[in-house]
Amino acid sequence: MAQNIYDDAEFFAAYSNLRRSVYGLAGAPEWPYLRAMLPDMSGCRVVDLGCGFGWFSRWAAEVGATSVLGIDLSEKMLDRARAHTADVRITYRQADLDVVDLPAESFEVAYSSLALHYLADLPRFMSTVGRAVVAGGSFVFSIEHPVYSAPSSPGFVTDATGHVTWPLDSYSVEGPRTTDWLAPGVVKHHRTITTYLDCLQRAGFQLEHFCEWQPTADEIAAFPDWATDLDRPQFLLVGASKTRTQRS
Amino acid sequence: MAQNIYDDAEFFAAYSNLRRSVYGLAGAPEWPYLRAMLPDMSGCRVVDLGCGFGWFSRWAAEVGATSVLGIDLSEKMLDRARAHTADVRITYRQADLDVVDLPAESFEVAYSSLALHYLADLPRFMSTVGRAVVAGGSFVFSIEHPVYSAPSSPGFVTDATGHVTWPLDSYSVEGPRTTDWLAPGVVKHHRTITTYLDCLQRAGFQLEHFCEWQPTADEIAAFPDWATDLDRPQFLLVGASKTRTQRS
Repeated sequence: MAQNIYDDAEFFAAYSNLRRSVYGLAGAPEWPYLRAMLPDMSGCRVVDLGCGFGWFSRWAAEVGATSVLGIDLSEKMLDRARAHTADVRITYRQADLDVVDLPAESFEVAYSSLALHYLADLPRFMSTVGRAVVAGGSFVFSIEHPVYSAPSSPGFVTDATGHVTWPLDSYSVEGPRTTDWLAPGVVKHHRTITTYLDCLQRAGFQLEHFCEWQPTADEIAAFPDWATDLDRPQFLLVGASKTRTQRS
Repeated sequence: MAQNIYDDAEFFAAYSNLRRSVYGLAGAPEWPYLRAMLPDMSGCRVVDLGCGFGWFSRWAAEVGATSVLGIDLSEKMLDRARAHTADVRITYRQADLDVVDLPAESFEVAYSSLALHYLADLPRFMSTVGRAVVAGGSFVFSIEHPVYSAPSSPGFVTDATGHVTWPLDSYSVEGPRTTDWLAPGVVKHHRTITTYLDCLQRAGFQLEHFCEWQPTADEIAAFPDWATDLDRPQFLLVGASKTRTQRS
C-alpha cells in the first residue's frame, strides 16, 4: 500500500502552493522534456497514473486523446481534478497504484508524473502497466532521481570553506525513506536506476528516452536557487515503448 | 586526445598492483555482470577498446572468438599484453580511442572496460563503434559511474557524528576532472548517464542491460572496505545491441 499523504491537510495545503500546483504543466520545469517523449496523442487512449489535480489529463484531451483515465489515491486531489473539467472524454478514478488493476491492451499511452517513488511494489505496477499498454504503445514517466531519494539525511551540506555538496549515501540500499517534505513523515521508496530500468524491461518495455533533468541557464537566471540542481539531479524522466513480449 | 597516463611510470607501477591487474578478470568484481551481458562469443569478431593487459582479449579467444582486435593507447600495457599470448587470432594495435578509425561492419562484439571516461569526444567514439558493429551485434562497456566521477572533491567525508557520505556536486556540469588516482594529475571526463545513453542511441544502439555495480554480502564479508560502494556506485555497466539505423 502506498501512503496517502496527499489527503493529509497540512501536506495538501503546502502541495497546493507549489508552482506546479498553481501553474500546472507550465509550472513544472521538466514538462517540456516529458512532452517531447510523448507520441502524437491524437486518437490515443491515455491512462494518467497518479493524476493529481488532472493537469496532464486535461492536456491530453485537449491535444486529441479520445479517452483519458486519471487515477489517484487522493480524494482531495480527485475532487479538485473533477471540478476543473466537464470533458466527457476524461474519467477520474480513486485507486492505490500499488494494487490497481487495469484492463489489458487498452491504452496507447501510459503516463505518470512523480508518483512511482511512492509505490511499495514497483515490479507489480510495471507488470500491470505492461499488460495495459498495447504493442507499440508508450509509457512515459518521471520520478524523483534516485540520487535525490537515496540519502539518509537529504539536504545540501555546506562545509567550513563554504563548499556545498549533496551528502549521498545508501544509494544501493533500496527501501522506504521517511522525510519531512511539506509535512512530517512522508514515506517514499528509494530504488536504484538499475531497478527502474530492469522492471521496465521485464514488463515488456524498451527504453527510448532517458533524461536527468537539469535547469537551463535561463531558468537559473530566473530562479537562482535552482542552480543547486546542477549539483545533483532532482528528476529522472523516462520514455519507453511496448515491445511484443514480456520477459518473465 | 585522451591523456596517456598509463605510460607514466608511477601510474603504471601502481596500476600493475591492483587486484584486476594481478588476477585479471577474476580480480574485477564487475566482470560476472559484464560477461552476462555478452552474447555467445563463438565465431564472433571482437574489438576490445582499451584492452590494457589483454585479459578480456585472451578470454574472448578462449571462448571461441574467431578474431580479437585489442586497442590501447599505452605501449607499456600493449607490451605486456603481447608478451602474454601467442594466439594468432589476437592482434594488438596502439591507438587513441579519441581519434581511432575502425573498419565498417566488421565486428559482432565491441567491448570496453573502464576506458570511456578517459575520452574527450564521446559522440565521435560512439559513432565510430556504431559503424564498426554489424546489425544485431553487441556493444558491452563499463565506465566509472557518473556519480563517482562528478564531485569536485571526490572522496568520502565523515561528519562530526561519524556519518560517512559521498560529497556529490557538479553532476550536471560535464567536463574534465583531474584527480590524484594512483598518480598526480589523472584527467578523466565526467558525463551524465543521460549523455552516455543519448550517445549510445544516436550511434544506432538499443539499450539491453544497465547495471550499477554493487558488492554482494559475501564480497563485503571478504573485503569489508567495499561496503562504501553501497553508498555510491563505483561502476556503471551497459549492454546494447546494434539496430539497423543510426540517428543523426
